[in-house]
Amino acid sequence: MSDTSATKPRTAMVTITFTPSGETIEVPRGTSLLDAAILCELDVPAPCAGQGRCGRCRVRVTSGEVERRSNAGMSTAEILEGWAVACQTYAGAGAIEVEVPERRKEKVRPHGHAIAEPESLPIVCDYLQNPAVKLFELEIEPPSLDDQTSDFDRLRRALSQQHGIEEIRAELPQLKRLGPALRHANWNVTVALEMRDWVYETYLPPRLLRVYPTAFLQRSMGVAVDLGTTSVVAYLVDFVTGRVIDSASAYNGQIACGDDVISRIIYSKRKHGLERLQHLAVETINDLLEELQQRNDIEPREIHELAIAGNTTMTHLLLGLEPRSLREEPYIPTIASAPKLIANELGLNANPVARVHILPSVGAYVGGDITAGVISSGMYATEKLTLFIDIGTNGEMVLGNKDWLLSCACSAGPAFEGGGVRNGMRASQGAIEDVFIDDVTLEPVFRTIDDAPAVGICGSGLIDLLGELFLTGIVDKSGHIDRNAPTERVRVLDGVPEYVVCRAGEGGAEKDIALTESDVSSLLRAKAAIYAGFEVLCASVGVDLADVEQILIGGAFGQYLNVEKAIRIGLLPDQPVERFHFLGNTSALGAFATLLCISVRHNVADVASKMTYLELSADNTFMDEYTSALFLPHTDLTGFPSVRAALAARADGNGNGG
Amino acid sequence: MSDTSATKPRTAMVTITFTPSGETIEVPRGTSLLDAAILCELDVPAPCAGQGRCGRCRVRVTSGEVERRSNAGMSTAEILEGWAVACQTYAGAGAIEVEVPERRKEKVRPHGHAIAEPESLPIVCDYLQNPAVKLFELEIEPPSLDDQTSDFDRLRRALSQQHGIEEIRAELPQLKRLGPALRHANWNVTVALEMRDWVYETYLPPRLLRVYPTAFLQRSMGVAVDLGTTSVVAYLVDFVTGRVIDSASAYNGQIACGDDVISRIIYSKRKHGLERLQHLAVETINDLLEELQQRNDIEPREIHELAIAGNTTMTHLLLGLEPRSLREEPYIPTIASAPKLIANELGLNANPVARVHILPSVGAYVGGDITAGVISSGMYATEKLTLFIDIGTNGEMVLGNKDWLLSCACSAGPAFEGGGVRNGMRASQGAIEDVFIDDVTLEPVFRTIDDAPAVGICGSGLIDLLGELFLTGIVDKSGHIDRNAPTERVRVLDGVPEYVVCRAGEGGAEKDIALTESDVSSLLRAKAAIYAGFEVLCASVGVDLADVEQILIGGAFGQYLNVEKAIRIGLLPDQPVERFHFLGNTSALGAFATLLCISVRHNVADVASKMTYLELSADNTFMDEYTSALFLPHTDLTGFPSVRAALAARADGNGNGG
Repeated sequence: MSDTSATKPRTAMVTITFTPSGETIEVPRGTSLLDAAILCELDVPAPCAGQGRCGRCRVRVTSGEVERRSNAGMSTAEILEGWAVACQTYAGAGAIEVEVPERRKEKVRPHGHAIAEPESLPIVCDYLQNPAVKLFELEIEPPSLDDQTSDFDRLRRALSQQHGIEEIRAELPQLKRLGPALRHANWNVTVALEMRDWVYETYLPPRLLRVYPTAFLQRSMGVAVDLGTTSVVAYLVDFVTGRVIDSASAYNGQIACGDDVISRIIYSKRKHGLERLQHLAVETINDLLEELQQRNDIEPREIHELAIAGNTTMTHLLLGLEPRSLREEPYIPTIASAPKLIANELGLNANPVARVHILPSVGAYVGGDITAGVISSGMYATEKLTLFIDIGTNGEMVLGNKDWLLSCACSAGPAFEGGGVRNGMRASQGAIEDVFIDDVTLEPVFRTIDDAPAVGICGSGLIDLLGELFLTGIVDKSGHIDRNAPTERVRVLDGVPEYVVCRAGEGGAEKDIALTESDVSSLLRAKAAIYAGFEVLCASVGVDLADVEQILIGGAFGQYLNVEKAIRIGLLPDQPVERFHFLGNTSALGAFATLLCISVRHNVADVASKMTYLELSADNTFMDEYTSALFLPHTDLTGFPSVRAALAARADGNGNGG
Repeated sequence: MSDTSATKPRTAMVTITFTPSGETIEVPRGTSLLDAAILCELDVPAPCAGQGRCGRCRVRVTSGEVERRSNAGMSTAEILEGWAVACQTYAGAGAIEVEVPERRKEKVRPHGHAIAEPESLPIVCDYLQNPAVKLFELEIEPPSLDDQTSDFDRLRRALSQQHGIEEIRAELPQLKRLGPALRHANWNVTVALEMRDWVYETYLPPRLLRVYPTAFLQRSMGVAVDLGTTSVVAYLVDFVTGRVIDSASAYNGQIACGDDVISRIIYSKRKHGLERLQHLAVETINDLLEELQQRNDIEPREIHELAIAGNTTMTHLLLGLEPRSLREEPYIPTIASAPKLIANELGLNANPVARVHILPSVGAYVGGDITAGVISSGMYATEKLTLFIDIGTNGEMVLGNKDWLLSCACSAGPAFEGGGVRNGMRASQGAIEDVFIDDVTLEPVFRTIDDAPAVGICGSGLIDLLGELFLTGIVDKSGHIDRNAPTERVRVLDGVPEYVVCRAGEGGAEKDIALTESDVSSLLRAKAAIYAGFEVLCASVGVDLADVEQILIGGAFGQYLNVEKAIRIGLLPDQPVERFHFLGNTSALGAFATLLCISVRHNVADVASKMTYLELSADNTFMDEYTSALFLPHTDLTGFPSVRAALAARADGNGNGG
């Protein structure tokens, strides 16, 4: 069944020593330095997953022979000093010594990322009627020679007699503690039970989570997690009150293995790549759990359940499921609904038998975060024709109401997250997030996050800037920058025109920050993909965008979106502003509701199974719609009356003032 | 909630270095050398669990200061050389160096221990009607852009369409392999499913065990394990044919931590003691699994289920459940029925999701091995009044029929396993197993296991010898040895008379082998406890021993028992020989049937729940019955007509020949 390698020539082996850690590894000649570093579990970042695009996996070869296939973006001086792109540099013959520069650990929190104030999350079901976790006080008859019933059966009997609960289940980790716990508590205990769980249509008896002395403080907590590709947010929930007590957030540690889901899937193909990605996801969540535990003085075992919402790739990686087929046509996930899991199985730092609910997904690119959004937005229960959208690297959208739900995902690319745009950046300190350009002087006014010196432009800033450039005529409807615009802000570098929104020195900026014509082109492709998605979704069920009664905007990016400016560039449909509603972190909200309430769990399963997934790459009309949307705001201006009016007003204004 | 230790004086720490391994550990002064060795995971045997009784945990203190509380059985010369009993020797001040002698690893197999010939086990149910594990061939429609159903849902759909199985469950380990497995097999797969499982009254959907290419050899195996205190036996079963293919056996590795269940429970209280016991149980089973896998060329993942029968202490230790309350009045187990377990959870070397069935127990001293015996003996289904007995360190017995079952356990002590008897030993090479004493000369003739030079006397040899000594008048009915018996075989050492059954040199024996009056006393106590158990069991339901229609003898020891000789000493009731039936390793047989057949699993659960447990220590009549049975064969000879006849015949013979 396996190849015999007896006749194969043996590959020459090379020893690589990494400094300053001192790790040494023997690898076949031709192994990339990045792969060798990963095998040594060294922290070498690879945002492009080792495709040689980002140049961030820099290391310094201090001795030995290597083969460089690319030196992407490195100066000759650096190359002479031994600096190399680890993913593009391969072990030659003999011993090699490689210095791994120390990384400044990204301690910064994701900016303004949906860190809800305590108790700010609404309770979306009457969870007290149907709670997921419940506490029961018991006074148990101690055993005697006349009644030698086992500890567990004695507990069951007491639950039946004192609370009418006929059956319970228990797993090994809890049974291991049961005997000592009952005796330590002198048979007066409080038990936490997971109340109702089911497999398909079959209900299971309640499940034992914990046994502790009634005399002690009784706490029963849960954690709802939004496992984003970029940021991860965790909410600590008290099962007794149903309230959010605290929250914490951090960047997803997997960023070191790729900025977006595609890069991470590529990374997973490396040796131990999938294990590392899974480990980083678990570690990121564990860091948040620890922070919440410390700040609120609770023990891991007091966390009785978790609910986690993430896109399909994130949940596959968290569970260690092979993600390869998500990326290859025809884009198939291993699972839509995750199996029953407990914290122990995943290595999460909670009660070892805490149930971990993973929100179910619909397809490879419509994940549990979107199911969570449909739930928390309430669109699954409304009569109104609703469009739910979550814009990020992918634009995911769902159209429908309580009777039907149709979803799709369009690959917008990373432009709205600052990727593929020269001065683009994530929404963190120093990002330009708000821009206004004077009609007459064509001079910009902008605001940065935390009012820090400008470092780059984040997604909302890019939308603002593009809209302003369009309205002021600096950029035309095809996305070309007017090289003759009457302002020194427009200049041409290497044949590519750009608009400098911030010059080095302005407000303390260290460098010029500009939007180039290529950047505009990236933004146009991104917004066109999303807008085409809306059109195809509506067309496939025979409705018009104008028929949509409400447009619900969820997701991290959505919170900072200015609807009018997004309409101006043709990213959002030109509908009355009152139809748009911002819902905040719908993924986290959905996880929160799932955590708390059994009826929501039913709804989640129901929604995920009834939602239809429209594969755009199999849809002929998508390409046509996309091409039509590659203009500002769109080829067909009749769909954008408010933009047409604004352009007309400007033309008038110019006419009047010129 | 936890003590603050700020005000406590700090205990002085001592460094102990073990040679030749070089392990070093820092422990508080006063720690026993045994505890320190266990913390270093060194292999120091402790058959008496560190109670200072056996002296087998010998080590040599080569430097440093220790406090000896006992030097049990050690000569002055040895003490001067530094030899010490590790469990009774405590770290003093300063650094200590301790030599751990290398142990000869016990490679010997348990003698003649129920290693069934392939296919010798009967099939006790129509398992083909209701198999526990079943294979299904599937041709799955490959995914496409028009049908992006997830891998798992696609598999479910095919099972439903092609085999009418509407629902299946799967755990994470199998899902991790699912995507690659389906593609590797080009969508033509065979799946192994665990067919019917239930929690209390609730049936669960079939569970996915494995997916593999239909083109490959399809095998589905199970292993039935008899987890004995002394020996462990494993049977490899083919689920397709229902046949036993092979078997393997070994001593339970826990023997190093105590010979009997009580010693092991004591051992479990040591730091990491319970973890070590659990590890040794798992390791013992894994060694057998590996042996079976190698010999039959199968992979761990081809083992799809396991069934394990053992006494209550053995199953608690295997699962890592705190066993302390099993030993302390009122003798309470943590569980009677084990939870649903998979191989992964226990670290067993089989398919990671292979179900591990632990046969349920009835009480602290009536375990899953007895439930297995009741099942495999068929007594749970018969009309006949039946007595089932399993004699070992404890005598476990069950009285009843298809309508009712009453069980009890009597602590016989280790005499029948060779413990507490000076020249007693387990049934292994060189053990005297069969003895005849000439009426006239009073000279013995004996046979040893494997005809090796005599080393000691095993249980069946002890019963034989005692019976012969009684019939020849050397031992009287009270158990006294006649110091004036006309033979040089009787001698008095240190005031205690003994009968030398083998002198040093006879047949190559290295030392005298004798039975002392104290040994006789131990044997009398052992047999009296068991016989009293029979009496109390019968009396408590108002029947007489003579009413019992069949007496079924199970367990390891039972296989080598000679009924007539056992009756002669009053161990077994004096009933017609045809009422006795030897069933072999009923524990293994029960595990085998449970492994194979779903209907048996129901019977097992049913039997365990309906069997009543009679606690003898709470029964007033037990002590009376025990005292009456402390004679050869019994105070009341009317219950032993055949023995009375034999005694009379001998008296006549003596009268005639004298």
